[in-house]
Amino acid sequence: MMRVRDIGEIGLIKRLSKGIKLDSSVIHGIGDDTAVIKWNKDKYLLFTCDMLIEGVHFKAKKATPFQIGWKALGRNLSDIAAMGGIPRYALVSIAVRPDSDVRLLDGIYKGIKALAGKFGVNIVGGDMAHSSKTVIDVSLVGEAEKKRLVMRSGAKPGDVIFVTGSIGGSLKGKHLKFTPRVAEARMLVRKYKLNSMIDISDGLLLDLGRVLDSSHAGACIFEDLIPLSKNAGSFDKAVSDGEDFELLFTMGEKEANRLIKHGLKGSGLPIYIIGRIMEHGRGLSLVRANGAIENIKPKGYLHF
Amino acid sequence: MMRVRDIGEIGLIKRLSKGIKLDSSVIHGIGDDTAVIKWNKDKYLLFTCDMLIEGVHFKAKKATPFQIGWKALGRNLSDIAAMGGIPRYALVSIAVRPDSDVRLLDGIYKGIKALAGKFGVNIVGGDMAHSSKTVIDVSLVGEAEKKRLVMRSGAKPGDVIFVTGSIGGSLKGKHLKFTPRVAEARMLVRKYKLNSMIDISDGLLLDLGRVLDSSHAGACIFEDLIPLSKNAGSFDKAVSDGEDFELLFTMGEKEANRLIKHGLKGSGLPIYIIGRIMEHGRGLSLVRANGAIENIKPKGYLHF
Repeated sequence: MMRVRDIGEIGLIKRLSKGIKLDSSVIHGIGDDTAVIKWNKDKYLLFTCDMLIEGVHFKAKKATPFQIGWKALGRNLSDIAAMGGIPRYALVSIAVRPDSDVRLLDGIYKGIKALAGKFGVNIVGGDMAHSSKTVIDVSLVGEAEKKRLVMRSGAKPGDVIFVTGSIGGSLKGKHLKFTPRVAEARMLVRKYKLNSMIDISDGLLLDLGRVLDSSHAGACIFEDLIPLSKNAGSFDKAVSDGEDFELLFTMGEKEANRLIKHGLKGSGLPIYIIGRIMEHGRGLSLVRANGAIENIKPKGYLHF
Repeated sequence: MMRVRDIGEIGLIKRLSKGIKLDSSVIHGIGDDTAVIKWNKDKYLLFTCDMLIEGVHFKAKKATPFQIGWKALGRNLSDIAAMGGIPRYALVSIAVRPDSDVRLLDGIYKGIKALAGKFGVNIVGGDMAHSSKTVIDVSLVGEAEKKRLVMRSGAKPGDVIFVTGSIGGSLKGKHLKFTPRVAEARMLVRKYKLNSMIDISDGLLLDLGRVLDSSHAGACIFEDLIPLSKNAGSFDKAVSDGEDFELLFTMGEKEANRLIKHGLKGSGLPIYIIGRIMEHGRGLSLVRANGAIENIKPKGYLHF
């Protein structure tokens, strides 16, 4: 018998995606932060979902109901942000124990509504069921102007790699109260030409690795350029820790210089340069603070 | 402390929906089979989701993985059918135990792909997580021509009430292998003017009650007109049993006569007349096979 954990999450997705047929209205299916679908003359429709499970994504004793709801929607908003899009419509599926205090549901919805209100997201429906553990699945439809859509797959050798904030230590608290980088992403795609973007949900190295895979590229990043959170612990732990919910994006050198000149100072945005995209054959290398160069394998948080 | 089960599913949905703000692009939010959103000049976008939980919606020992996947997507297709729409794009969130046999996931996806293929649905992404019980949440985007959209809320006194097939006994097997009435619904909305429609997922009486609530109407139905499945057991059990996944719809008398003349015979469709829509003040009455008239309360399957 082959078990789910023996194949691993990435292998499973490849295995299960086989034989899926898509019609010509689908611009991009499985394999980016969101699906991309034809919508109208100027816009694409973005479609994403994220499941939150008690004991896996949060601990009932450590997270308030408000934080659970906030995080459930926030993860989805972060995916829409990673495409340069605008979040629009959400459905909320939720399962709880029948003997739960109704304040659990009240609080979860308060968290969802608060974050939805902040970004003008319409909560248009959902589903309710009973379950021994709390499960929340939010699905989200967003939109992106065709000319502003950013995917994982567009990174080019020579691109400068940026992140929108500090990395690591999210599980000490930030993962329950982060503000998804929707506004920052919109500012970026309105003013600049980005070649690729992803949200860091499973660890900087793993998610950078996804950009490199999709773009058929390599990269070189610098230990002393990567901004660490104060709770991050060691560098190696920080860059493979999940749930930073920062954005990682790349730009050609000319655009990068424009951003550096106009954006990094004055904009108030916490944007950091962490390295460069290279040719595919170069793989992923990390320049240590002491100057040593290591060839590394992307790793991070995977469910299996 | 007030518990979730003390308020009940319907009360909870009302409670949690309070204070949700919708912008003018939302034609219909919480309260129908799917949300209805502006899409383009001719079409609305439909958006729905349904969660399937091991031990609640299926028993791991009684359902094959293929059947679980089929049902997970089928429930959503049934919701799109109930609006007269065409299902288009699906996301699949799935959580299983890490030590699960990979054939569980293979089978679930086989079921999903088989049904998706049957109706031209694009599986465009999803999410994966680990969990002690299998959970599947499918969200679905569909479309409906503006002129063909049917909601729960349009039933009018005098309307004839139809169902698309036999009622009851679904839990003896049909709930795991039903074919959602997408083709039947499309045939109906293309050829006829329907005033209201709903899919029977929580029991004939409960779902008819939802149509009556939304339409501010009453109804009279006839015991000896309601077609029962051969596994249905007693009439009273059959009409409050969940998961028939048939459609219930209403039409004005003139349209109904057209359907009766052209459709009921010859079309091969199992369409049955079960009663009439009445004024709201009349409530819901059931004419028993012996001629006795009972005023009844809608009841059916609720999670809380």
